[in-house]
Amino acid sequence: MSDTILVIGNKRYSSWSLRGWLAARLSGLDFTEVLVPLYRADTPERLKEVNPKAPPKVPSLLIGDNAIWDTLAICEYLAERFPEAKLWPEDTFTRAHARSVVAEMHSSFAALRDHIPMDLSKHLAYEAQPADVAADIARICEIWRQCRADYSAAGPYLFGQISVADVFFAPVLVRFHSRSIPLDDVCQAYFDTLWALLEFVDWRSAAEKEEWVITDYGPK
Amino acid sequence: MSDTILVIGNKRYSSWSLRGWLAARLSGLDFTEVLVPLYRADTPERLKEVNPKAPPKVPSLLIGDNAIWDTLAICEYLAERFPEAKLWPEDTFTRAHARSVVAEMHSSFAALRDHIPMDLSKHLAYEAQPADVAADIARICEIWRQCRADYSAAGPYLFGQISVADVFFAPVLVRFHSRSIPLDDVCQAYFDTLWALLEFVDWRSAAEKEEWVITDYGPK
Repeated sequence: MSDTILVIGNKRYSSWSLRGWLAARLSGLDFTEVLVPLYRADTPERLKEVNPKAPPKVPSLLIGDNAIWDTLAICEYLAERFPEAKLWPEDTFTRAHARSVVAEMHSSFAALRDHIPMDLSKHLAYEAQPADVAADIARICEIWRQCRADYSAAGPYLFGQISVADVFFAPVLVRFHSRSIPLDDVCQAYFDTLWALLEFVDWRSAAEKEEWVITDYGPK
Repeated sequence: MSDTILVIGNKRYSSWSLRGWLAARLSGLDFTEVLVPLYRADTPERLKEVNPKAPPKVPSLLIGDNAIWDTLAICEYLAERFPEAKLWPEDTFTRAHARSVVAEMHSSFAALRDHIPMDLSKHLAYEAQPADVAADIARICEIWRQCRADYSAAGPYLFGQISVADVFFAPVLVRFHSRSIPLDDVCQAYFDTLWALLEFVDWRSAAEKEEWVITDYGPK
């Protein structure tokens, strides 16, 4: 067991955990994953037990006595510690663009979150969405199209090479997939690229197991 | 007029604008402030006019052709560009702690935001708050007390010297002040310190003017 612990919630449901975990895996961090099942009577108590210094939320990255308890703060920490993983784009304004997109994802899209929770076990036929959900979906697709228009020469991800921005949209893919949201060609191509990311495939495979699980990971 | 523009909303009401503006002032950025009055029929159109490449939100930092449209992304950009301003703490884990606190502020406390909007023109007597608002206030005070316990040797702000974390709590002070929320001694001392910050005093003085205003700022 590593002295670096990433506390996450259920792989099936916890969208923020997916983000923090993907960033950790992409960075090459040596860490032990501790999965605390959510929505149970003892969940707050268990979270407090593994992570006494932070609010009872997931994900949380524990390094010695230090707790980093928000996904974006975890990503910034990992980006600083593992510059070779290039979790942020190298160009200053491309990086600022990526951070704008990530921050928008971090604080917005409440209608989409509320109406279509991340649930890897669901794959329903498409139905028309309420106006506020449709507006959120349209805005996300607008972000994707803009990024693909600006950076497609540099690679298949939002900012060319994979970055925190893609990590932040991974749970959105699950939401879209769970309701078969139709996408235009540009957005579908991006969806397919990110959906096929090995670490993301790995997470989805593991989502079948919904126990208290401890797993060790190291550099790739 | 500088080629660097910070688009903000009303100084009286726009909590995110206050954060972006304080960070810009503390960094020493050379910028022109463009204030677009919010909640008017032509607000979206005016925002689109000054900032065609970003969503119609404030604040937005425009540098040449580049738009940075979220407060946290603006702060990260400024922290990178002006390392001498030390917008983030220098120690790695203190910085990660600061980013955890900032990210929690960025995405949480919906009850407080909804129930007590930032309004610099209000100063009402205290009334008991609904449970969810009281819980948000209690959590914010818990963050402040923890930071003051950990870092008071380094200075009077949350992480000793002033940082993005203080910038993020500035609008919370306005909310607390508008309803005369009672604070314990530690929290009140922190409140008084941040309330007296010259740039914050400057913002509050300017909040009386609610016009389309263009103002130039340079390094301190």
